Formats: sequence, structure tokens, C-alpha cells
Amino acid sequence: MIRIELAQLNPVVGGMAANSRKIIDVIQSSGADLVVFPELVLTGYPPEDLLLRHDFQEAVQAALQKVARACTDTVAILGAPLRNRNGHLVNAAVVLENGKIKGWHEKIILPNYGVFDEKRYFVSGQTPYSFELKGVRIALAVCEDLWCEDHIDSRFRQEHAEQIQRVQADYAAIEADILVSINASPYHQRKTEIRKQVLSRCARNSGKPIVYVNMTGGQDELVFDGQSMLIDAEGEFIAKMPAFTQGTAVVCFDEATRQFNDLGTLQTNGATLVEETRHTYDALVHAVRDYVAKNGFKGVVMGLSGGIDSALTLAIAADAVGTENVLALLMPSRYTSDISNQEARHQCDQLGVDCRTLPIESPHTAFEELLKEYLDIVEGDLTCQNIQARCRGVMLMAYSNHTGRLLLTTGNKSEMAMGYATLYGDMAGGFAPLKDVSKHWIYRLSEYRNTLSEAIPPGVIERAPSAELAPDQRDSDSLPPYEILDGILESYIEQDRSAEEIIAEGYPEDVVIDVIKRVNRNEYKRRQSPPGPKISRRAFGRERRYPITSAYS
Amino acid sequence: MIRIELAQLNPVVGGMAANSRKIIDVIQSSGADLVVFPELVLTGYPPEDLLLRHDFQEAVQAALQKVARACTDTVAILGAPLRNRNGHLVNAAVVLENGKIKGWHEKIILPNYGVFDEKRYFVSGQTPYSFELKGVRIALAVCEDLWCEDHIDSRFRQEHAEQIQRVQADYAAIEADILVSINASPYHQRKTEIRKQVLSRCARNSGKPIVYVNMTGGQDELVFDGQSMLIDAEGEFIAKMPAFTQGTAVVCFDEATRQFNDLGTLQTNGATLVEETRHTYDALVHAVRDYVAKNGFKGVVMGLSGGIDSALTLAIAADAVGTENVLALLMPSRYTSDISNQEARHQCDQLGVDCRTLPIESPHTAFEELLKEYLDIVEGDLTCQNIQARCRGVMLMAYSNHTGRLLLTTGNKSEMAMGYATLYGDMAGGFAPLKDVSKHWIYRLSEYRNTLSEAIPPGVIERAPSAELAPDQRDSDSLPPYEILDGILESYIEQDRSAEEIIAEGYPEDVVIDVIKRVNRNEYKRRQSPPGPKISRRAFGRERRYPITSAYS
Repeated sequence: MIRIELAQLNPVVGGMAANSRKIIDVIQSSGADLVVFPELVLTGYPPEDLLLRHDFQEAVQAALQKVARACTDTVAILGAPLRNRNGHLVNAAVVLENGKIKGWHEKIILPNYGVFDEKRYFVSGQTPYSFELKGVRIALAVCEDLWCEDHIDSRFRQEHAEQIQRVQADYAAIEADILVSINASPYHQRKTEIRKQVLSRCARNSGKPIVYVNMTGGQDELVFDGQSMLIDAEGEFIAKMPAFTQGTAVVCFDEATRQFNDLGTLQTNGATLVEETRHTYDALVHAVRDYVAKNGFKGVVMGLSGGIDSALTLAIAADAVGTENVLALLMPSRYTSDISNQEARHQCDQLGVDCRTLPIESPHTAFEELLKEYLDIVEGDLTCQNIQARCRGVMLMAYSNHTGRLLLTTGNKSEMAMGYATLYGDMAGGFAPLKDVSKHWIYRLSEYRNTLSEAIPPGVIERAPSAELAPDQRDSDSLPPYEILDGILESYIEQDRSAEEIIAEGYPEDVVIDVIKRVNRNEYKRRQSPPGPKISRRAFGRERRYPITSAYS
Repeated sequence: MIRIELAQLNPVVGGMAANSRKIIDVIQSSGADLVVFPELVLTGYPPEDLLLRHDFQEAVQAALQKVARACTDTVAILGAPLRNRNGHLVNAAVVLENGKIKGWHEKIILPNYGVFDEKRYFVSGQTPYSFELKGVRIALAVCEDLWCEDHIDSRFRQEHAEQIQRVQADYAAIEADILVSINASPYHQRKTEIRKQVLSRCARNSGKPIVYVNMTGGQDELVFDGQSMLIDAEGEFIAKMPAFTQGTAVVCFDEATRQFNDLGTLQTNGATLVEETRHTYDALVHAVRDYVAKNGFKGVVMGLSGGIDSALTLAIAADAVGTENVLALLMPSRYTSDISNQEARHQCDQLGVDCRTLPIESPHTAFEELLKEYLDIVEGDLTCQNIQARCRGVMLMAYSNHTGRLLLTTGNKSEMAMGYATLYGDMAGGFAPLKDVSKHWIYRLSEYRNTLSEAIPPGVIERAPSAELAPDQRDSDSLPPYEILDGILESYIEQDRSAEEIIAEGYPEDVVIDVIKRVNRNEYKRRQSPPGPKISRRAFGRERRYPITSAYS
């Protein structure tokens, strides 16, 4: 019988000093025989091209030695980049015992699809590593090593079918009482269910129970949800740690029965799809919180329009950093309706958020006068609409520059897809919480948030969406209805379906063609957009790498 | 004896219809036995995630069949993505003969470093493919397959040492009279010399002459320089095609002597390092020209300050798209010196470029008045400086929106590195010609351009650099002298040297530490910058993937 502590930590990328302090704290206060930390916990995930620097690798090795020295009574398994015996970098699960590196497992299957670029940095390990602790034989895996099913990227798994089969056979054949898997598995919707299915199959295939430890916290466009879990040898879910929460939990493992006992603070009710909305909301809150904290900002500033996107962004911001650290600017133009101003102020009052009203009429007019000298701009045309959005961008950035606050943008994924946003205007900002949230999810999340406490005025949810950049403007003047648009976008972007296939789903041909053209044409805008957290199967940003210059449509 | 035509084409990414028309034109007007086209000429390079779409792959196959049908009297070798016999995507050199696909070589060594992500898309081929044409045995290679030396990425080559050795042995052992290598090899400084060395060694190792065909043209952040060449079996350079020029050239190959004869339009003087400045300038011109043309813009617009960066950008723009398609805006503020306005106007007069003067005082004042209500901004502080740059960004984007012109930004690599630029201000634009050009190269290129004809006023070259956003401002108030700065930046960014190593080179410790901190802190700005052509060993953008959130310094 051994006691295993699951350490579901939130490291910061490149912060080896802070990360190793955090790791050592857990080890030194642990009464367990074994503490298990996430994949690349020492460097944070993903360290990207920092991994190519030898000064970085030296800092990692120094931190690893420091952590090793702290392992006197407790054995630790933790993720770190390591040079293997050929001098090549591997993504390792390192075993620390008695002040030393006892051995390590080298990640065998290196994900190189979606957001993952691991073949850019690492070489593959060959076979699983195992070691013995108090009579218990423990085999190690790093994340993708156990990912035998094709829920995420069927193409990658087909191409690596032989390697995956071999690794699965190795895990079935290896003499071990238990598999310990360390992970940096980013959140997206339905991921919890997928992980459970994958791990359940792995446990059954290998005939071994699994301890699965995942990372938490936000890192640029990724957010890690934790939800570390235990699966028994029959593939049954036993218990898990909470989502989006840094912490530790201890469990006993009986090698005789191969059962987990004394589940302690672990939750025995598995996450279900019912929790998807809550998890999505929590993912956004944690992404904002960590971006602000890890980049050292003094709170956030944002524009509040009286529309639903900025209203939801405000609620997320307030939940992430506290209402006292949020500043909202209302920047009405000549086209802003009274109801927009009222709803915006009402929401700030309700949440207790500091807000200031700065009408943009004077710079707006100044630009129009200047430009009219040479250009025949007409009130309400696209040039004039963009000027307004950019006047707001200038104001918001001045606040950000002067106060040190992070500027949050408020645009959603449906708009980003269509280019229905102004570059350097409403797209100006350091972080875009809703970048991967399509419009129908904006409504779902707003309604969910209001079940906790009223944060988004019902009037804002009910009104027809408008950018209010021209007289009597409605989103529906320029975009298909969102229920149609979002369906087409999901098929095109997340599922790579062709125009013909999407039309065959029942969408009108002219709408489908127009939507696809606009998605393709607006890659240049997305390339200059701020980062925002991935919550869908395929987010814009590093996950979807399309050329700007492209004749394909 | 066979006649080989080298077809150094400039395809457009995703433009299979246009690309295949261009390819067929060459084939149909060719009197040669064999026409050789570049790597992935059918799709353009790099097609990025378009490769993941099955509709895209179907369009490629249809285009390939169309090209095959055109091959009646002439055999063609061309690059295209292809499904191999296991159904996996390969980067192929396809041989078309008698209206059919005769066979194909599958790229064996897949570059997955720097700007390359080929392991994201392709699986590796196993052994070189060869075929016979009129008694000549021809073995095929795709780009990296022959890249045996570690000039570019020593780490990649160490990790793939076994594979590289095996491939080299295969090319030495294969029974063939000649190697034909098709390429999409992007330009960077010194690349021509490197290619010659690499190919020379390959020819000697394999004992075979090499026909090397490369792509031309710009694609987002890459520019291909062509310079297709012939190397004999002793490793001697024989002849090459011009740089940055689409075209074809025919050569005779005598299998008995293994010599190239009848060099026709090919140039027998190899490119030398002396030409580096000209090539760099030409790379920038071609990158701008192709970005404008391939994205369908109606000319360009840009801000002209009277400083050297915008002056050089104007010269490049005029050379790229013609003076009649360039519009320059002079947007003086209260801090702009008379000499700046004079030099800017003088340059426009000299080049014959249309220019308009639009003083930004009125929106500048309007923003200051608005902001002063709540913020204690002080004339000349960072907030106020940024407001001016952003007023110009709004004006320029209004011109771009209203006229359909591409907005060029004028910032250089040294500024981009240090974050010495205003996001949404002078960084606003669709393409950044000087993004990868450090300040000392700005001077070198300006002087070079003036040797052709006076395009940059000498006064602009001689004056001390200033952003003119505050009274009597100089770059040297905020930045180390450029000769020191550029040296530190090259060591840190292009060579991944540590602070200690750079200090050991002789740079002052405090300056080195400060520069590195500022480079790291400003990743968020670079992430939102427009694309610009890579001309250095390591460019910002997709080649240098650093996290924004990072505690490493």
C-alpha cells in the first residue's frame, strides 16, 4: 500500500525559479510516498522556442537538481525537458528519489497537430520506463503516450497507427501495478468526457489502473483545466480533482487488490456534459485571471457598448480579477442609442464596476473634417464606421498605457471568422476573452452567468445585436442570422467540411459561399488579433494556420 | 543526350487553377525532353493548414490530372502533395509522362524547424525514386533530402543524423546518371552561398551531377529567390538562373560524359557574397510586389515622416509597384520639424510619388482634451506619444479602407525587437517590408539604392533618428546606439546566445540585460504586427515562436 499525492499545479512558462519553489513546497509538506506533478511542470507548457536556448536548458537543469535535493522522504515524478543519452531533448517524466534523478520516461508519441508542435523540439522515446516504490511497480507515461483513440485528430492517429499500436502493446506487456500519466492537456469543450473514454480504454487495454495528473491555469491561448483523475484496471472512473483549481489530493493505492482506497478530497462524481457550460465559463475566467496575473497587469480596462459581447466580457473580467480591478469606458458616438448607454451604466452599477463616459464626438469629427479634404467619405460608409471604432481604440489604449491596465477586447469568434470587426478599433487590446466563443455560446454563457447572480442585464440579452457605427445599423444587415452563421462556421472551421458538404447539410448555397469567402479573406485581420483562450475543438490562432495570401476559396 | 528545361516559377498558394495553367503553358511551349518545376509548385509553398482540408486535396488531384494530360511529348517533374499507398499525405516530386502519373518520389527528410512545419502535414518517404528517360537514369529529391550540412539548423541535423546518413548513402548507391532536386527554398542572407556549398558536397558524396530548381516570388513572410542551378558530379558550380525572376532555361545533359552542355540563357557566374545587399533589396521589393499583386490591392499607401525607415520603404514601394501606385501621407504633429516635412516632400517630388499633407493637430488635441478630464497626462509622456502615432494610424487606415490600397508599415527589426513602436499606431498596416531589416541594414540598403538612382535624400540618411513624438526627441534617448543594439540583438535573437555570452563579446552588462528584458517583454506587440518578409537567419513571426506570457529573462 502506497500513498500517492496528485499535485495539480499551475506553473508559469519560463518561471523555473517560481515553479520549482512551488514544487518543493508540495514535496516538503507531503506525507505521501509519491507526489505526482504534471507534464513540463518545471517550465510550464508550452515553453515554445525557449526550449531551443541552451541558457534556458541550463536553467531547467539547475531547477531540477534543486527539486531533486528536496526529495528526501518522498519520491516525486515530474515533467521536465531533459537531454537524453544521445544529447537530444526529450519531454520527460523524471523520477526523483533520495536527492537524485533515479530515472526517467521519455515521451514516445509527440503530438504535432492542432496547437501542438512537439516534433519541433523533442525526439521520441522508445519504450515505457518503470520503477519500483515500496513493492509497487510503477510505469510512466506522458500525455499523448496513452492517447490511443482518435477523438481529437484522426489524421495524426492514422499516420502514427503503428507507433500507437506498439506503445499500447508495450503498456499492456510491461510488468507494473499501476500507470502514472503526467499531462499538460489543454481544455476544450467535451474534453473531460473524451479524456475519460480514452483513459478507460487504456486501462482496459493495459489491464492497469491509471493515475492521471493534469496541469491547471492559463497560458496565452491555452487554458488547462486540471481534473486529474483515477481510473481502475477495469476502466471505471473512480474519482477526480476539481476543474480549474490548483491543489493537491492524496489517495492510497493497494497493489494487492490494485484498488484505490481512502479517496480523501477527491470527487467521486465524474464531470458530465451537463457541466460543459460551467466549464466553458470557468475556462474563460481562469484564462483572463492568469493572463493578468502572470503578465503583471494592474487590473483591466475595457469598452462597454450596451451590447451582449462586452456585457459578458465585463462579467468574466469581474469574476476573474474582482470588480475593483475593472474599469469600463462608455464611449458613445452620435449613433449610440440611449438604451445602450443606460444598459451599460446599469450593468456597471449592478456589478459595482467603476465606469466613465467619454463621448468620441470630438475626435470623430476632427478625423472626418481632415479626411473630407481629399476623400469623398459619406456618413455611415465603411471608412467612417472604422474611424469611430478606432477612436475608441485610441481612448482605450491611452487608458491602458496610462494606468498599466490590460485592455480586453470584446469580439466573439463568429465576428472574428467573418472579419466583422475593426482592426485597431474594437480589435485593439492585449487579450480577447471571447475570441473562441461563437455568438450562440455568448448567449448560453450569459444566461448561465445570470443563474449565479444577475450580471448581464436581461435587456442586453434580448436586444438585436448592432455595432451602432451607422444609423439604425443591425448585425443582420451584414451577416446571416447567427443560428445559420454559427452552423456554417462550425462545419467549415472546426470540421473542415467543403462548401458542397455544408450546402448538403441544408444551408442556403449563396450564404455558404459568401461566408466561406469572407472567412478566407479576413485571415489578415485574425493574424493581428490579440490572443484569447481556446475553448472549441479548433480555435483561431496557432491552432488554425492558414495563409493570408491565398487564392483558394 | 537529353534537353532539360528548368521552370523557375512563381505560383500562388492555393491557386491550383492559375498554377496549373502556368505549368501547362510551360510544358506545351517546351521543346525539351524534360521540364522540371519547383517543390509544391501546384499548391504554392507553404499551403499550411489548407493541406488538412480534403476539398483542397481533391482540387490538387484534379489539377494534377489536368497537368498530366498536357504531358504528351514532354516529361514533367513537379511538386505536389499526394496521398501515398497507405493513404498518407506526402510531399512528392511527381513524374508525368504520356498523360499519366508515371511515379513519384516522396520527400524523405521533412524540415520541422524555423519557418518549416512539414511534420504537421506530411509523412516521410523511405528511399529515393528514379526513372529512365531516353536512356538517362534520373533520381529525384525534394529540397531537404539533399540538405546534408548543418548551416541552417544544426540541432535538427543532429537529431536526424541517422536518417540523413541513410539518405546520403542511398543517393550515393542509387544507379542514376543525374539527381534532380525540386525546391521551395526561401531566401535569407548568405543562403545562395550556403546552397552552393550544400549541393557541391551532395554532388561529390553521391558522385552525381545535380539539377536544382527553386521557386520564386513572395508568400506572406517568405520570399523565394529562384537561382536554380546546375552542379557537376565533381561538385563544381556550372551555371544558374537569375535571382527573383520567374522564367525558364534549357540545358543539355550528356549521360555519357555526365556533363551539362549548351547552357543557353543560364549564367555561369555564380552569385557571390558581394551581391548580398542587392539580393536583400530585391527580396524586399519582390515580397512587396507579390503581396500587393497576389492579394489584389490597388496600390499602396504609407506614412512618410522624413526619417530613413519610411524613406527606404517608399523607395521599395515605388520599385515594387511603380510610383504611380504609391500614395504617401505626410502627417506632421506639433513636434515635427520643418526639415522632416521638407525632406519628405523632396523625396516624393524626386520619385514622382503623389503625396498629401494632413496635420494631425485637430484629432490629437481632441483626444488630449477628452482624456485630460480623467487622466493626468502630461505633454510628451508615453500616453501622449502613442496618441499621435495612433492618430496617424487612423488616418492611414481610413485611406486604405477608402481607396483599397494596402497600408505599408515602416518599422524596422531593431525597433520591433525593442518594442520601440506604437501598437495600432506606426505598427498599423497590412505588410511590413522592413520587419526583418535591422537598423544598420536600413542604412546599407538606402546607400545601395542610391547607387542605382537617387531615391533617398542624403539629408534623411545623415540625420539622427527620431520618432518626433515629443519635444527634441532622439531614438538615442530611449535606445542604445544602433551599432551596439544591433550587435546584441543579432547575438540574442539569431544566435540564441545567453546574456553572459553576449557580455563576454564585449557589450556593456547593463545594456545587454536591458535589451534582453525589452525584447522579451515586447513579444505581445510583435504578435500583433503585420507580416513582413524574412531576410535574416531568424525572423520574428512564425520562425521565432516565443510565449507572450513568460517569466524567463
